[in-house]
Amino acid sequence: MIKTGIVGATGYTGSELLRLLYHHPETDIKVITSESKTGQQFSDIHPVFTQIVDQELKSADEMADMDLDAVFLALPHGVSMEYVEKFKDLDLKIVDLSGDFRLSSPEVYESWYNKDHTYQEGFKKAVYGLPELHRDEIRKTNLVANPGCYPTASILGLAPMIKEGLIDEKSIIIDAKSGTTGAGVKAKPATHFSNVNDNFKSYGLKRHRHTVEIEEQLSGLQDEGIRVQFTPHLLPLDRGILATIYATPGKKIGEKELKQAYADFYQEHPFVRLRDTAPSLKDVRGTNLCDVFVTYDERTDRIIVISAIDNLVKGSAGAAIQNLNLMFGLDECMGLKTVGMYP
Amino acid sequence: MIKTGIVGATGYTGSELLRLLYHHPETDIKVITSESKTGQQFSDIHPVFTQIVDQELKSADEMADMDLDAVFLALPHGVSMEYVEKFKDLDLKIVDLSGDFRLSSPEVYESWYNKDHTYQEGFKKAVYGLPELHRDEIRKTNLVANPGCYPTASILGLAPMIKEGLIDEKSIIIDAKSGTTGAGVKAKPATHFSNVNDNFKSYGLKRHRHTVEIEEQLSGLQDEGIRVQFTPHLLPLDRGILATIYATPGKKIGEKELKQAYADFYQEHPFVRLRDTAPSLKDVRGTNLCDVFVTYDERTDRIIVISAIDNLVKGSAGAAIQNLNLMFGLDECMGLKTVGMYP
Amino acid sequence: MIKTGIVGATGYTGSELLRLLYHHPETDIKVITSESKTGQQFSDIHPVFTQIVDQELKSADEMADMDLDAVFLALPHGVSMEYVEKFKDLDLKIVDLSGDFRLSSPEVYESWYNKDHTYQEGFKKAVYGLPELHRDEIRKTNLVANPGCYPTASILGLAPMIKEGLIDEKSIIIDAKSGTTGAGVKAKPATHFSNVNDNFKSYGLKRHRHTVEIEEQLSGLQDEGIRVQFTPHLLPLDRGILATIYATPGKKIGEKELKQAYADFYQEHPFVRLRDTAPSLKDVRGTNLCDVFVTYDERTDRIIVISAIDNLVKGSAGAAIQNLNLMFGLDECMGLKTVGMYP
Amino acid sequence: MIKTGIVGATGYTGSELLRLLYHHPETDIKVITSESKTGQQFSDIHPVFTQIVDQELKSADEMADMDLDAVFLALPHGVSMEYVEKFKDLDLKIVDLSGDFRLSSPEVYESWYNKDHTYQEGFKKAVYGLPELHRDEIRKTNLVANPGCYPTASILGLAPMIKEGLIDEKSIIIDAKSGTTGAGVKAKPATHFSNVNDNFKSYGLKRHRHTVEIEEQLSGLQDEGIRVQFTPHLLPLDRGILATIYATPGKKIGEKELKQAYADFYQEHPFVRLRDTAPSLKDVRGTNLCDVFVTYDERTDRIIVISAIDNLVKGSAGAAIQNLNLMFGLDECMGLKTVGMYP
Repeated sequence: MIKTGIVGATGYTGSELLRLLYHHPETDIKVITSESKTGQQFSDIHPVFTQIVDQELKSADEMADMDLDAVFLALPHGVSMEYVEKFKDLDLKIVDLSGDFRLSSPEVYESWYNKDHTYQEGFKKAVYGLPELHRDEIRKTNLVANPGCYPTASILGLAPMIKEGLIDEKSIIIDAKSGTTGAGVKAKPATHFSNVNDNFKSYGLKRHRHTVEIEEQLSGLQDEGIRVQFTPHLLPLDRGILATIYATPGKKIGEKELKQAYADFYQEHPFVRLRDTAPSLKDVRGTNLCDVFVTYDERTDRIIVISAIDNLVKGSAGAAIQNLNLMFGLDECMGLKTVGMYP
Repeated sequence: MIKTGIVGATGYTGSELLRLLYHHPETDIKVITSESKTGQQFSDIHPVFTQIVDQELKSADEMADMDLDAVFLALPHGVSMEYVEKFKDLDLKIVDLSGDFRLSSPEVYESWYNKDHTYQEGFKKAVYGLPELHRDEIRKTNLVANPGCYPTASILGLAPMIKEGLIDEKSIIIDAKSGTTGAGVKAKPATHFSNVNDNFKSYGLKRHRHTVEIEEQLSGLQDEGIRVQFTPHLLPLDRGILATIYATPGKKIGEKELKQAYADFYQEHPFVRLRDTAPSLKDVRGTNLCDVFVTYDERTDRIIVISAIDNLVKGSAGAAIQNLNLMFGLDECMGLKTVGMYP
Repeated sequence: MIKTGIVGATGYTGSELLRLLYHHPETDIKVITSESKTGQQFSDIHPVFTQIVDQELKSADEMADMDLDAVFLALPHGVSMEYVEKFKDLDLKIVDLSGDFRLSSPEVYESWYNKDHTYQEGFKKAVYGLPELHRDEIRKTNLVANPGCYPTASILGLAPMIKEGLIDEKSIIIDAKSGTTGAGVKAKPATHFSNVNDNFKSYGLKRHRHTVEIEEQLSGLQDEGIRVQFTPHLLPLDRGILATIYATPGKKIGEKELKQAYADFYQEHPFVRLRDTAPSLKDVRGTNLCDVFVTYDERTDRIIVISAIDNLVKGSAGAAIQNLNLMFGLDECMGLKTVGMYP
Repeated sequence: MIKTGIVGATGYTGSELLRLLYHHPETDIKVITSESKTGQQFSDIHPVFTQIVDQELKSADEMADMDLDAVFLALPHGVSMEYVEKFKDLDLKIVDLSGDFRLSSPEVYESWYNKDHTYQEGFKKAVYGLPELHRDEIRKTNLVANPGCYPTASILGLAPMIKEGLIDEKSIIIDAKSGTTGAGVKAKPATHFSNVNDNFKSYGLKRHRHTVEIEEQLSGLQDEGIRVQFTPHLLPLDRGILATIYATPGKKIGEKELKQAYADFYQEHPFVRLRDTAPSLKDVRGTNLCDVFVTYDERTDRIIVISAIDNLVKGSAGAAIQNLNLMFGLDECMGLKTVGMYP
């Protein structure tokens, strides 16, 4: 059994980790922490766990002596880096769910997050935790930077054709739509019920942080730098990201060749599900799947990809567990094989 | 033209007053105030009014010299009473949308609102602004206490049979369901999108403040004191209150006699719409109507009433305008004749 | 392994059975049937199962020779009875999810369902499949009549105090609110998106079929006949039933005694979760739990119970699996221990 | 008073026409028709009109003798053309809300609608009813082809920069998202509540009929043929279309010049509201406004436009009334000046 701790358990990623790990046969949740709610029961904060996980919330300070094997950091960016530093001398595998170590350097981080990075050493060890791109490195590292939700949907939708050099790298447009849980558990005007319900809008036009995360990962798949147009929107629903992706072929291509590139790329990746028709968000809700549909429009000479995930699972807690499985040499799918709840 | 001011324009009742008064031919909105957003444009706070009502928000302190004829107080309880006092020597008709002057005495107020009342004089002048019960007094007063949203739906659903003494006054149960706008514009956990969406629950069991407001008004319709069981619930939608009301007949009664009592009671009240079938919330959304359906269940010897309003219109801003119309001798329906938006 | 068949797999109860059984270690789904979609893949009808359950849909006629141990009938009432009759000579345990064998006699059935019953023999064998009331009989029978969704929430909310004779049996009011999946997978005006979204209404006033099912089961708990007022409403959400139940005490009672009665009654029933605060629907969504909160209002001398289930799990497919577990001597909870997905 | 008839009043466009015309001072609704519901009351079909518009539904056959001045055809495509032909010799102005006369020729119609056109003469008279492009022709015609909802949002978002030749005409991508009312009043699986609620997906990829309507209108604004990538999606809400539009500049351009082009183009068009920030759907819900926000992304050298309408108002019934106003020489805004209902 992997002795595991979860740091920061009051948010959605924290509770989602617990929901999923409840079925994981090889982890033992030794400690759940919250600095603001220390001493309360986990189920006081998340009543859905009443009589299931009533464990008391601890302070992270108590973790050092617990001889843990693994820790999930379910913390906001800027806070996570402190804990990565604090734990650096422990023999501990860390999955950091924040954005603190996802980018290529402290400089890039600071320019997109408008914030100093206080543990620059971390960048040397951190591996970007998208198993479909970096499975081997993940297996060997002690620090995984778990990908952002939008980047997961976007990169998985684009990777095969970028790897194969099929598209004009200046042509990529990612029109993404997300449920509200991506904005977190904290009540704020943007996620006030009446501002979201029966409503829809874009936000973060031209400057959302996930843009650079997508560009860096895609650029790593071929020689040239990739620049993408990324536009997020807020859907009146809880969970899910659907990215509608447009790109112009860089050379002559047909529907069949295109689909083959995707089939090849993902043939050994159990959580990418290639679809024959455009997926809906509920097809993946609650699961660790990324549904991908790709098609070519002859009339306009353009490729369209639809990619769908549950932002709290494949876009966060599920991917974190997938990474944990890899780091400990377990079956990549352990604890993650569920059917979506529909409806 | 009635020179009108709106005090407290950042909430939902404030913006709803503006939406409705935009079509009112006899009012001129001279001033809109907000102490926290003074100097900003009204449409900065409520973008739906962009290029329609861009008026600058003032401080209420500027109102004294404006020679206004009428003022709406769209303020929280506890704050409203200060303004009623402040305006007491001006020749001004006031519609107070808060709960500060709805109850029979400062003592009752203090015991249900857990708060001192600082302007007890106001109770002498205030008239409870439900025209279907107090139209004549409203015509003559300078201070209307606009009813609460739950009380409006509940009282209008019950008044005819209580007036006629048809029911056992200990048997009344009001199972009420409201959209989230009743909880206000301010973001808080209870109205965080993901806590409301696809969810439903009761709240304020046994001790909601509107209970006493309902009981006092109903008790005024017959000699004996009325005690009701009132249970509010939160619906995953923006607007509307639907109250399902149960009562046991106090004497032998038939469906026909029951419906006749309602027809008689409301025959000169244009905003109560008696229905032949149970109404839905969207039937009244955006309108000043209260839809009422009443039926008798022989099998159980029980009366069931379904009552539906839009909490922001008949339950708040619309009723306030209806009251203003009465106070100024205008047609009661002026500015309020709209068809609900369905869907 | 229990060789299992599912008859009627195109509806919500059919797909929910598959979703849950996917994690059940002792069942092997040998066959899934649909007469209207024979030959298609299960995942063509329910895309959420793509590449997970692609099994071909068969005709139920092929089942006779399959040597099955158990069959779930996920069929409409009126159709189910034909299959119960058809399978009557096979050595097979049947869980019937329809209403065909839930009532006490063909006569009662015919008067509430307005339909002839063509297999009256079935009533002799059928056991009402609410384990919290009839666990021992379920263990011994070959035919379980799985309870209706509203009755499950209502009966579990009321059973302890009726068993203990605590209430006036004429006083029971069940104000129930359900998501739309209770109305089935078939598109119809009542469940057209724009008729439900941002809307709320009652339906089936005074005459819903589940009334008699509730009354019969409750009457079985004490000597006298119970008559309930049952009012269903339609919520703008997918899953869940929340029943707000009112009753007048038949004798002097206190909060503590009341809660103790519930604790005693349910102490060995793992799926009833007694709550200290009123539950929300999302607390139980996706799970086999029935959350029950009970309280006494001194001011009005009335008992209020809030009961919440997921209509597709504890109100249907989950209860069916719970019954299967009992019929085969397995752990009652097998395959059913999940945490609700929140949000 | 303009004596007006509405043909086909059982759908959403029919009831929306009535909702809006209720406030129109110069129209008198002489007749409302439905072939399938002849003899019923309009409010039986649309209960929101109870006691407001209880008018009996007639057969369209009765219209010939009514000496009407104007008729709205709120009919499906394929049916509308029959009525346009039937009314061709009457002295009547027709606004056809279907797609039957929107395209440039019967041939184009037949290739995109897969259906013979039975009244090809109509194309000679029909004017495409987008006042922002064709106001003068609308004033003079007797037959307006009211635009599609997606085309309205798309064309208004693109027209100024196409007119000014600012963009590469091969680069246009329209990623559009619509509420469910665009799919009509009829219950079908695609709009079954549980398939839409908490869900999101694309549909009609590469081949939606509105594509050609958009292309033809845009091509009319400059010499070269325009080809667009148009991808519609289905939002879990009732009303509204939000189009996120991408285009590459055809020459060097700055933010300021771009915004100026829009300001110039729309300066005399009262229903296009240029916004400084990205609009949300609720900003225009219930109104005849089209909110447009345009910006230039230097980093990617791309123009982004967000365009938002209420599909049942500016995308249908509201535009139809705007056209009627123009055809009869009335103020273009008559009956259409409302503030959106927010929330």
